[in-house]
Amino acid sequence: MRIAMDAMGGDHAPEVNVKGAMLAAKDWTDIEIILVGDEKQIKPLLDESISNIKIHHTDEMILADEEPVKAVRRKKNSSMVLAGKMVKDKSADAMISAGNTGALMTTGLLVIGRIPGVERPALAPTMPTMDNAGILALDLGANMDASEEHLVQYAVMGSIYRSKIHGMESPRVGLLNVGTEAGKGSEITKAVYPMLEQLPINFIGNVEARDVLNRNCDVLVCDGFVGNILLKAMEGTANNIFSVLKVELTKNFLRKAAAAILKPSLSAFKKKMDYTTYGGAPLLGVNGVCIKSHGSSDANAVKNAVGQARNAIQKELVTSIASEFNKK
Amino acid sequence: MRIAMDAMGGDHAPEVNVKGAMLAAKDWTDIEIILVGDEKQIKPLLDESISNIKIHHTDEMILADEEPVKAVRRKKNSSMVLAGKMVKDKSADAMISAGNTGALMTTGLLVIGRIPGVERPALAPTMPTMDNAGILALDLGANMDASEEHLVQYAVMGSIYRSKIHGMESPRVGLLNVGTEAGKGSEITKAVYPMLEQLPINFIGNVEARDVLNRNCDVLVCDGFVGNILLKAMEGTANNIFSVLKVELTKNFLRKAAAAILKPSLSAFKKKMDYTTYGGAPLLGVNGVCIKSHGSSDANAVKNAVGQARNAIQKELVTSIASEFNKK
Repeated sequence: MRIAMDAMGGDHAPEVNVKGAMLAAKDWTDIEIILVGDEKQIKPLLDESISNIKIHHTDEMILADEEPVKAVRRKKNSSMVLAGKMVKDKSADAMISAGNTGALMTTGLLVIGRIPGVERPALAPTMPTMDNAGILALDLGANMDASEEHLVQYAVMGSIYRSKIHGMESPRVGLLNVGTEAGKGSEITKAVYPMLEQLPINFIGNVEARDVLNRNCDVLVCDGFVGNILLKAMEGTANNIFSVLKVELTKNFLRKAAAAILKPSLSAFKKKMDYTTYGGAPLLGVNGVCIKSHGSSDANAVKNAVGQARNAIQKELVTSIASEFNKK
Repeated sequence: MRIAMDAMGGDHAPEVNVKGAMLAAKDWTDIEIILVGDEKQIKPLLDESISNIKIHHTDEMILADEEPVKAVRRKKNSSMVLAGKMVKDKSADAMISAGNTGALMTTGLLVIGRIPGVERPALAPTMPTMDNAGILALDLGANMDASEEHLVQYAVMGSIYRSKIHGMESPRVGLLNVGTEAGKGSEITKAVYPMLEQLPINFIGNVEARDVLNRNCDVLVCDGFVGNILLKAMEGTANNIFSVLKVELTKNFLRKAAAAILKPSLSAFKKKMDYTTYGGAPLLGVNGVCIKSHGSSDANAVKNAVGQARNAIQKELVTSIASEFNKK
């Protein structure tokens, strides 16, 4: 299995990418990692005794703040686009990037291309839950608006991912809505509800934002706009509460003692809420495995993204989605 | 000033409504409260020495789970609809209800009617913020979907409310979005952004869900669907963290000691997050003052809703909105 890694993507590139690649290459000897990026920067970081890592040199790269479509169209030799091309021409089985999210989605769409029948690829990160099992939420970021048909396709792809990759027998698919009753919601959620009922998936109906942390479903279907609001609202609230606790817990000696007692469980909860710990987000619907790891990933998170890609290749994720979409 | 109260609305009706009315009537002798509802139930609760409370008897009422439009159309003598009629025919200057939210909005629309020029009334509760000043968010619940023009009108009405009722000189109006940059968002937020820039309000641009608790604006503009997801996500996250803390803080003696130390600040924060403490939500855009108090209101919350209605009458809220919409 050959995995192309955009070595130049992310806040701590290329260091954490190279380190993460080395951790992965040592653990999984059945993979070969192709580090796409600037050889001059990568080589000094790389332990050359590891035989299953190669470098594919390029000195072009897409920056974090570049306009995605323009960047992908113009920078044809950027590390991200080259990794995408390898997936397209089958010289790699998967690609990973921690770089510009919009550019990665454009690379997926324009360089790798869609699975026939898929109207819109969807980015599917894992939302945090109290039991650490997480909820696969899609779409979160690839497209702000979604039609009924897009939401239906998200539901199918998310369900396949959870059963194929996470081994769930019958993943519960929920539609993010303002109430659990069937008639609730916006025009689009009302229209899509009966369509979801017709699918060969375990559609459990509408689910509410307030119960996401309690894992009210395994796959959460929403458009990119609403999904983003949900995730950021959860993040913001948790961060605010932790800030308050931090201030309160350092006010005087007694409170510092209380803080020491509580620290382990608060840290555990904080980690729970940090969705970067749940691994990378697959870009579902593109004709190849494409994993977005978080921009602030450390070496371990990069390694986990490689593991996720390896898993998706082994379980034939793309073939599974393609065959479901070709049935129709 | 005459304020009609739907005495039968809310989870603890009519008790808390009557108690709240008595508290308000004692404090503000310039108002007269008309309790609309079942005399047999109201009378035993009422201290008849309070001269500025009257009862308007009816034995019909709208239940919490009734279909709003049907209920309002059929139950023409329900306590809620009668209170709305009093506002319509000017026998009351304002109405208050803690009952069925959808039915109250229907009463606003069909019984009281819209201010000329207003396309859609909006329900505007206050979102919690760390500094307790709150953010007036609209629309939250009256309409799931909103057009560009609706969002523009929400911005204008919210801005007038904050300056008239809360005395803010130049309330900051923000558009709920997935990023702060101008080009971000869904088709509708991108289209409405330049329209908001043209208004005679202090439009500060896009604001993000994660910063709401830090009061990133004074008026938050969003459609009812997204606003509901935002509010519930914040609520759910806070409740989950408090549940975890509760478990962690009762595990053993040492932790119970820590809990005792932290209790006051945790309680204060919990109260901060409880949006019912921020008072009732005005239904803006209807041709009369109409306040929705929370279904779980206690007597004090009911009293505060009366105060809010009194304030809106005194500050001529409806006239201010009407004159702004008639300028156009």
